[in-house]
Amino acid sequence: MNYKMIVYILGKMLGVEGGLLLIPATVSLIYGEKSGFSFLIVSAVLFLIFMVFGQKVPKNKMIYGKEGMAIVGLAWILWALFGAIPFVLSSSIPNYLDAFFETVSGFTTTGSTILTDIEALPKGILFWRSFTHWVGGMGVLVFVMMLTTLDDENSMQLMRAEVPGPVVGKLVPKARSTARILYTMYFVLTAALIFFLLLGGMNLYDALIHSFSVAGTGGFTNRNASVSYYDSAYIEGVLSVFMVLFGVNFNLYFLLWMKNGKAALKDGELRAYLGIIGGAIAIITINTLNIYGNVIRAFRYAAFQVTTIITTTGFYSVDFDIWPQLSKVVLLALMIIGACAGSTGGGIKVSRLVILLKSIKQEMKKMFHSKSVTVVKMNGKRLSKDTVHGVYVYFICYVMIMLVSILLVSINDYDLTTTVSAVLTTLNNVGPGLELAGPVESFHIFSPLSKVVFCIDMLLGRLEIFPYLLLASPEVWRRRF
Amino acid sequence: MNYKMIVYILGKMLGVEGGLLLIPATVSLIYGEKSGFSFLIVSAVLFLIFMVFGQKVPKNKMIYGKEGMAIVGLAWILWALFGAIPFVLSSSIPNYLDAFFETVSGFTTTGSTILTDIEALPKGILFWRSFTHWVGGMGVLVFVMMLTTLDDENSMQLMRAEVPGPVVGKLVPKARSTARILYTMYFVLTAALIFFLLLGGMNLYDALIHSFSVAGTGGFTNRNASVSYYDSAYIEGVLSVFMVLFGVNFNLYFLLWMKNGKAALKDGELRAYLGIIGGAIAIITINTLNIYGNVIRAFRYAAFQVTTIITTTGFYSVDFDIWPQLSKVVLLALMIIGACAGSTGGGIKVSRLVILLKSIKQEMKKMFHSKSVTVVKMNGKRLSKDTVHGVYVYFICYVMIMLVSILLVSINDYDLTTTVSAVLTTLNNVGPGLELAGPVESFHIFSPLSKVVFCIDMLLGRLEIFPYLLLASPEVWRRRF
Repeated sequence: MNYKMIVYILGKMLGVEGGLLLIPATVSLIYGEKSGFSFLIVSAVLFLIFMVFGQKVPKNKMIYGKEGMAIVGLAWILWALFGAIPFVLSSSIPNYLDAFFETVSGFTTTGSTILTDIEALPKGILFWRSFTHWVGGMGVLVFVMMLTTLDDENSMQLMRAEVPGPVVGKLVPKARSTARILYTMYFVLTAALIFFLLLGGMNLYDALIHSFSVAGTGGFTNRNASVSYYDSAYIEGVLSVFMVLFGVNFNLYFLLWMKNGKAALKDGELRAYLGIIGGAIAIITINTLNIYGNVIRAFRYAAFQVTTIITTTGFYSVDFDIWPQLSKVVLLALMIIGACAGSTGGGIKVSRLVILLKSIKQEMKKMFHSKSVTVVKMNGKRLSKDTVHGVYVYFICYVMIMLVSILLVSINDYDLTTTVSAVLTTLNNVGPGLELAGPVESFHIFSPLSKVVFCIDMLLGRLEIFPYLLLASPEVWRRRF
Repeated sequence: MNYKMIVYILGKMLGVEGGLLLIPATVSLIYGEKSGFSFLIVSAVLFLIFMVFGQKVPKNKMIYGKEGMAIVGLAWILWALFGAIPFVLSSSIPNYLDAFFETVSGFTTTGSTILTDIEALPKGILFWRSFTHWVGGMGVLVFVMMLTTLDDENSMQLMRAEVPGPVVGKLVPKARSTARILYTMYFVLTAALIFFLLLGGMNLYDALIHSFSVAGTGGFTNRNASVSYYDSAYIEGVLSVFMVLFGVNFNLYFLLWMKNGKAALKDGELRAYLGIIGGAIAIITINTLNIYGNVIRAFRYAAFQVTTIITTTGFYSVDFDIWPQLSKVVLLALMIIGACAGSTGGGIKVSRLVILLKSIKQEMKKMFHSKSVTVVKMNGKRLSKDTVHGVYVYFICYVMIMLVSILLVSINDYDLTTTVSAVLTTLNNVGPGLELAGPVESFHIFSPLSKVVFCIDMLLGRLEIFPYLLLASPEVWRRRF
C-alpha cells in the first residue's frame, strides 16, 4: 500500500470539505444565525489538516485498485466524522453518535434521521444536512477529483471504487473529463428541478433543500411531515419525475447528449427499471383502493411512494406504514432492488437483478441440456464470466451482511418488522422503514450498538461493500508497499 | 425424455404407497376405528394403478439426470395427492386442500399443520400422518428403489435427484447397496429412539409417533401441546440428542461403521453444525434468563428449541413466540441454515453455508491480491469450481423463491413476522413459525393461495429446488426422446 499517497489524497479531500462548509456558513449568515460559527470552526480545522497533509505531493504517485478502495472507504468515514461536528457545536444534535449517524445518513444519501423535530433546527444547519446529500450523491471523490490534479490513471482507480454498479466504464478516454461531464449533467438536472419547484410556488430555500435531496436520492427535508407538508399533486409529480430521472444510469444521458437516443431507450436496465416501477404502482394502487376511495388518489400516493422508495430517496407523502401488508412487502422489495447502476440511487441495482435472473435461467438450461453453454447477454453484449461471477459474490455478501445486521439490531428487542425494515432501509440507503422505523418515526429510539450497525450498513450500501471488506482485512495492512 | 419409463416407475411407486397404507389400516383395526376403511379404499385404487402402469417394463430402460429429476418431482406430488385422500374420506380433514397441505407437510418432513385439535383425530389417521414423516425422511424413492429392481445406473440418477446436499456420493459402488445401508442405519437409529422413549415411560403409540417425527426431522406429534405435553427433561433430552443425530450426514455413520471414527469426527460440516448449535444455545440461554429465572431451566428450553429448529424438526417444549426478539431471530437464522447435507433435515444445509463463507473469503483475497487463485477446501479436499458455482446458484435461487413467496403470502394481509416466518418454516421444512404461524397456532387461517404457495415451498425445500424448476421448464417437455 502506498500510505503516503493515501494520506496525501485524504488530506486534500478534507480540505475540500473545509471549503464546502463555507456554503452553509453563508446560509447561516444570511439568516443571522449564530450556529454559523460552528461551520467556521470545523472549516478552519480542516484547512489546517489540509495544509499539513494535503500540500506536498509524494514522490511515488502510483495508486492501484487496493489504494483506491482504501482511500474511498476512509474518505467517507472522515468526511462524516468531521461533517458531524457542526451539529454538536451548534447544539442541534448534542449527542455525537447521533450527529455522526445523521451525517453518514446524509453523505450516503440514505435520509434516515434521528431527529424528532426537524423544524426546530436553524436553517443553516438544515441546509448543511441536505447539502451532504447533494455532495454524496455523485460521490465525494468524483467531486474532489474534478478539483484536484491527480494523474488520469489514478483518478480511474478512485472512480472504479466509488461509482455504483457492476460495470464501470469511462464515457470518454480521460477519467477527469468523464467526471466533469457527469457533474455537468448533475448540475443541469438539479437546476431544472429547482426551476420546476419554484414554478410550483415553493420558496427558494425549500426548493434547494428538496432538490439536493432528490439529486442525491437522499430523502432529508426541512419539514417534519416530509413532502406530505405541501399536499400538492404538482410538487409530488415533479419530485417523482426527477427522482426517476436521478435513478437512471447517467451514461444514458451521455448517450442522449451524443444524440444516440435510440441506444439509450433500448437499454435493458432502463426498461426493467421502468417496468418494475409501473408494476409496483399498479399493485399498490389496486391494493390501497379501499383506503383512498378512488383510483386517482390511490394512484397519486402509490406513484409517489413507489418512485421515492425504488430510487432509494425516501420521502413520503402519506404514512405508508398503514398500508396493507402486500403493499408494504412490495416497498421492501423495491428497497432491495434499488435504482439503476451508475445513478445516485442505492439498493442492489436493477442491472444486478437482471443479470442474476438471466444467468439463473441460463444455469437451468445448462443443467438440463448438458451441451448448451452459459451465455448471459445484456443490451446485446455478452457478459464475461467474471462479471456474472462478481454479481453472484456481491449478492451473497449483501445477503450475509443483511442477516448479520438483523441479528445485531434484534438485540434492541423491537418487533421483527421494525428490525428488518430498519436494516433494509439503511443498507439500501433508502431512509424510512416500517413500524417503529416507519416514515413518521425516528431512529433516535435505537441503541448505540444499533446506530453503529446502521452507520456501517449505510456506508457498505453506498460504497457497495468491497471497500470496507478491504479495510477490514488485516492482510491488506500487513504488507508494506 | 423417456416417458414410458417415467410412467412405469411412477406406477411402481404408487403401488408401494398402496402397500404402505396397509400399515395405518392395521393400526385402525387394532383400535377398532372405522376410519381404517379410508386407507383400504385408497390402497385398492393405488394397487389398480400399479397393475395398469407399473407391471410391464418398457423396452428402453435408460433414464438420465433429467428423467431422474422429473420422476422424483412428480412422485412426491403424486404420493401427497393420494396420501391426502384418507384424511378426507375419514372426515378428519374435510377440505381436500387442507388434507393435501397436511400430507405434503408430512412427506416433506415439515410438520406445519392446519389442524387446531390434533387429539380429536382417530389414532389410525394420526399414525398415517406421522408415518409420512418417517417415509419422507429418507426419501420416498430411495425406499422404493430398495424394493424394486431398477438397473444400478438408473437408481443413481434417482438418488442424485433426491438426497439433499451439494455433493452426492455413493458409499459403496452399487446404488442399491448404498440405499440398503442408509436404510439399515435409519432403522437402527429409529429403533434405538423408540427404546429410549419407552424407557422414559412413554407409551408405545406415542413413542412410535415421536420416533417417526424425529427420524424424518418432521415435527408432527399426537398432542396439541407438542412435546411440552410431557413436561419431562428426560424426554426432551432424548429427543434433542436424536434430533441432532438425525441431522448429521449419514455418510459419517457409515464411516463410523467402517471403524473410521477419526475421519468422521474431523468432518468440517459436523464441527460447524455442532458449533452453531452450541453458540445458539448459549445466546438464547442468556437472552431468556429473565423469563425462566434460572440458568438450568433457560438452558433446558434453549437446548430443546435450538436442536428442534436447526434440525428442522419443529417440535416445541415452550412457546418460543414469547421469547425476546434476539432469540427469535436466532431461531429464524437456524431455520435458514438447517441441518447437514445427506441427513433427513432441511434448510440450505450447513455445508452450503460453510462453502459460501469460505469461497467469499477466497474471493476477497483474489480481489485484493490479483495473483492468488481461488481454492475452496472442505475436509482437506479441494472443491471443484463447479461445486462452488452450484452452491452459489442454489443460494440465489433459494433467496429468490423466498422473496417471491413472501410477496404472494403477504396478500393475506397478516403481519410481516407471520408472513416471513411462515415462508421460512415451510421452505426450510421446519414446521412452526412466529406470531400467527407460531408453535401454538395453526396454518388453517391462511388463504387457499397461501396454502398452495406453502405446499410448493415445502416440496421445493425438500427436493432442493431443481427437480421442480425442471418440471416448470417448458423446453424439457417439448423435446421427445
